[in-house]
Amino acid sequence: MLTAGSDRTYAIGLDFGTASARAVALDTETGDELATTVSPYAGGRGGVISDDADPNLARQEPQDYADALELTLGGVVAQLAEQGALEHGRIVGIGVATTGSTPLPLDDSARPLALDERFRPDPAAKAWLWKDHTAHAEAAEITSLLEERELPYLAYVGGTYSSEWFWAKILRCARTSPAVFAAAASWCELSDFVPALATGAGLDMSRNACAAGHKAMFSRLWNGLPAASFLAELEPGLAALRERLYEDVRPAGDRAGSLRPDLAERVGLGGEDVAIAVGTFDAHAGAVAGGVRPGRLVKIVGTSTCDCTVTGEPEPRPIPGVCGVVQDSVLPGLVGVEAGQSAVGDLFDWFVRTLAPEGLAGPEAHERLSAAAAGLEPGASGLVALDWNNGNRTVLVDPLLSGLVVGQTLATTAAEIYRALIEATAFGARVIVEQVERYGLPIEDVVVSGGIAQSPLAMQIYADVLGRTVRLARSANASAAGAAIFGAVAGGAHPDAEHAQAAMGGVGEIAYQPRSDAVRIYERLYGVYRKLHDAFGRVDGPLSSVMKELIEIRAGALA
Amino acid sequence: MLTAGSDRTYAIGLDFGTASARAVALDTETGDELATTVSPYAGGRGGVISDDADPNLARQEPQDYADALELTLGGVVAQLAEQGALEHGRIVGIGVATTGSTPLPLDDSARPLALDERFRPDPAAKAWLWKDHTAHAEAAEITSLLEERELPYLAYVGGTYSSEWFWAKILRCARTSPAVFAAAASWCELSDFVPALATGAGLDMSRNACAAGHKAMFSRLWNGLPAASFLAELEPGLAALRERLYEDVRPAGDRAGSLRPDLAERVGLGGEDVAIAVGTFDAHAGAVAGGVRPGRLVKIVGTSTCDCTVTGEPEPRPIPGVCGVVQDSVLPGLVGVEAGQSAVGDLFDWFVRTLAPEGLAGPEAHERLSAAAAGLEPGASGLVALDWNNGNRTVLVDPLLSGLVVGQTLATTAAEIYRALIEATAFGARVIVEQVERYGLPIEDVVVSGGIAQSPLAMQIYADVLGRTVRLARSANASAAGAAIFGAVAGGAHPDAEHAQAAMGGVGEIAYQPRSDAVRIYERLYGVYRKLHDAFGRVDGPLSSVMKELIEIRAGALA
Repeated sequence: MLTAGSDRTYAIGLDFGTASARAVALDTETGDELATTVSPYAGGRGGVISDDADPNLARQEPQDYADALELTLGGVVAQLAEQGALEHGRIVGIGVATTGSTPLPLDDSARPLALDERFRPDPAAKAWLWKDHTAHAEAAEITSLLEERELPYLAYVGGTYSSEWFWAKILRCARTSPAVFAAAASWCELSDFVPALATGAGLDMSRNACAAGHKAMFSRLWNGLPAASFLAELEPGLAALRERLYEDVRPAGDRAGSLRPDLAERVGLGGEDVAIAVGTFDAHAGAVAGGVRPGRLVKIVGTSTCDCTVTGEPEPRPIPGVCGVVQDSVLPGLVGVEAGQSAVGDLFDWFVRTLAPEGLAGPEAHERLSAAAAGLEPGASGLVALDWNNGNRTVLVDPLLSGLVVGQTLATTAAEIYRALIEATAFGARVIVEQVERYGLPIEDVVVSGGIAQSPLAMQIYADVLGRTVRLARSANASAAGAAIFGAVAGGAHPDAEHAQAAMGGVGEIAYQPRSDAVRIYERLYGVYRKLHDAFGRVDGPLSSVMKELIEIRAGALA
Repeated sequence: MLTAGSDRTYAIGLDFGTASARAVALDTETGDELATTVSPYAGGRGGVISDDADPNLARQEPQDYADALELTLGGVVAQLAEQGALEHGRIVGIGVATTGSTPLPLDDSARPLALDERFRPDPAAKAWLWKDHTAHAEAAEITSLLEERELPYLAYVGGTYSSEWFWAKILRCARTSPAVFAAAASWCELSDFVPALATGAGLDMSRNACAAGHKAMFSRLWNGLPAASFLAELEPGLAALRERLYEDVRPAGDRAGSLRPDLAERVGLGGEDVAIAVGTFDAHAGAVAGGVRPGRLVKIVGTSTCDCTVTGEPEPRPIPGVCGVVQDSVLPGLVGVEAGQSAVGDLFDWFVRTLAPEGLAGPEAHERLSAAAAGLEPGASGLVALDWNNGNRTVLVDPLLSGLVVGQTLATTAAEIYRALIEATAFGARVIVEQVERYGLPIEDVVVSGGIAQSPLAMQIYADVLGRTVRLARSANASAAGAAIFGAVAGGAHPDAEHAQAAMGGVGEIAYQPRSDAVRIYERLYGVYRKLHDAFGRVDGPLSSVMKELIEIRAGALA
């Protein structure tokens, strides 16, 4: 199927992020990125609709997705045309990666309810963005009912249902916006909505294995979605909705359909048959672009991280505290394993925004602090920090944890604290690696992508702390590149994702090797980190009440 | 004895600090401060001789003390003369307060060895300033030999001999500068040296109870200084020195002698008989000026704190972790109790110097951060800190502890951390109050003096955390005022220190009352602080190894 010579084929990858959508066009043989275009969402602030009265609320305007789809596709097609690339080749497929869990309610023609005049101003009818936390009480209710009923639905997704996830958000809608809930013929994830929009599918749209398995408790082990009886106990309407959802899921890279003719026409692909791939989550697509395979962990490190690996073991088995162990969720045919850190770039940004002193602050604060921190020897600050300013996603799965810095003297400097925060995120990364290994999946090397991958200081610290080579992913736009890989598979340019990945993704030339002196010192510091981690973070730790109590006191003081 | 009407009497208080000496002249009846003058020491940097190769070294030039004595005395006498105050009154006495333990070696005419041509450039011949830590190994040796021999000498001074104290420094001199040690006919504390200089006393100079009891392990319970046999085991020369030191001590306010005629002449007091009081330490004098009495704790809160109270109980009993419980050390006839916090103003200065962000930094950083922090509700930050950036003096007596901040989120602000540091020092203050009370000395109110007393934010937090009225001392120069009180007693203007204190010292008009809402919240936060305090600070705490290990790792990394 692989085309060569002057008869080239291209695949487009779409990445629907939090503030904007991006499209890239990759040569399916060489993986060269030929075109890229970004389209910010028009709605809300930075694309996100918020509510001053409720900091937990984060929604998006579904129309923005439709607009961005057309604009970004049109943009890369135009760029390819301009380069003359379309004279010697053609676009065979389009893959889609999006944020998630980002569910939205649909009417019976699969149109977002938000476009219905009756619900236009109602935030409940819009897309419930991944970082919307309005459903925290509903999430806790789901977890506790599952425990009470001794149901296994969370065994493979970390043991705790999150306020960010599909069912919690829909339950919240049913409770607080019953009119929207009643009007919804169905709900879908953004990662299914965009392919449906591109193909013109109705409510029979393809549902992707990644979102279903990670966020909606879908598994073949219990015949799909959670039992109607369980859902009915939460809210009778949910059991009825279950019947209108889906019974099967498909892996990314499967062909969902063809680009619908009217849209093809408008983006400059009139008359072409372009395959649309089943969607996936952005971080999972990024992992595929980063060359994820058994024995390799790919970390997308931005404001937070998403860490993925895969295993060919026939039966997925649960890894305590790891967000997801889901069949087909990363690479078709393999079990995807997903973990994550709640704050990495966000933690460094917080420090810069809040505590960077004069002379080190300003637009180049990260560069200045990094330069100063790079001059320090490992261990020389006498500091260690916990990277929990935004809670802990893996392996403690506890949003009610908080940050800690210990070891300060009257001579401690800002650069030392900045470095300690970087080290803390590296220690957090190591906890994940060790947990995955403890449950039988050895990690030989680590590939990093995302904004923080561009920091040589952070990457060297990661290599030293992890005691492993840390390589940078080839693509700077890994999620979009991963989507393009799936687009190439759907379009027939490669027989499967592994072949497409080998040709179009993988690692670049930059690699950081662990330095033995630093490894030795970080080994000791990691021991201190683990001691603090377990004392403050484990349920049975001697200081496990401290962070909870501080949050309680804060809540009382602010009430 | 109290003079009245136009025949007024005045007392001068001398305060020999770290960078300069200050003299104040007080009316012995009203306590009004009529004159003050400050004289910086000429030697070293800011009066302190240091060594770039050894950050532990801190010495002073004895000649600077002599110069400052004459300059400050001359200064206040001239001011009094200028005001016409000497036409209707006379100076009856001079009291002396100094830093300590600040020992210096003397020749057989009580002249500092530093003035001997042979030793002029040798730092060992100079005054070993209180904050000189070169003798840390010797201090540890003293503690461990005392433990081995089961000797009780540390029972009343916190259980651990400090590198800052008399015998450790002299032992260090004997080991590293044997020529100086051999040439020393005797050693004295600065608080004995200045009165001796003023009176012209020889090696039979008066020795004050405060310095002897707190720093030289002097107690009537074991017939004075430590046994010669013990000292000989440390170093034979120390046992010989013991014979040349002293067998008795006197309380501050006792008359040490009269101002020597030549000096009186030069400072404008020719022909007058002016009493010179036995000396004391600056913080103890400050406590006296602040109205210390049974049931009242006086805190001198500057870069660090010194906290004093007194008890009339016939037998002093040890209070674990409290620096000193010493007969006559604060007020004659009472047992003085001294505790302290290693960093208060230093901690706030560190934050401002290191982490104050743009917009809050600069010369008015403390004011700006305080204004922002004052707008926060107690508990609303969700933060708690340990105030150990410079170790912990009371009640853990451990210099190898370090700072900690916990509870940070991505929304935590600099002002919140600044406030948490202030609160941490208040919690540290409360630990001291509770320890003193646990051992039978109830504390009813707290008086504060020193630089930090000028911060309404800090003082309100102290009142709220301590659950007690916090009053400000009347005098802004409490140590010098306390010295003047002792000068007045020595000069016969008052029968004893209590009478002089009542007339000349005590509290001013500013008082902070605990606010019940804040008290309730701080009660809970203090519980969290105590949990961290005990977990990290107590020898048997579950995290007691953390700070030690970080210091060890740091030492290894820097080696």
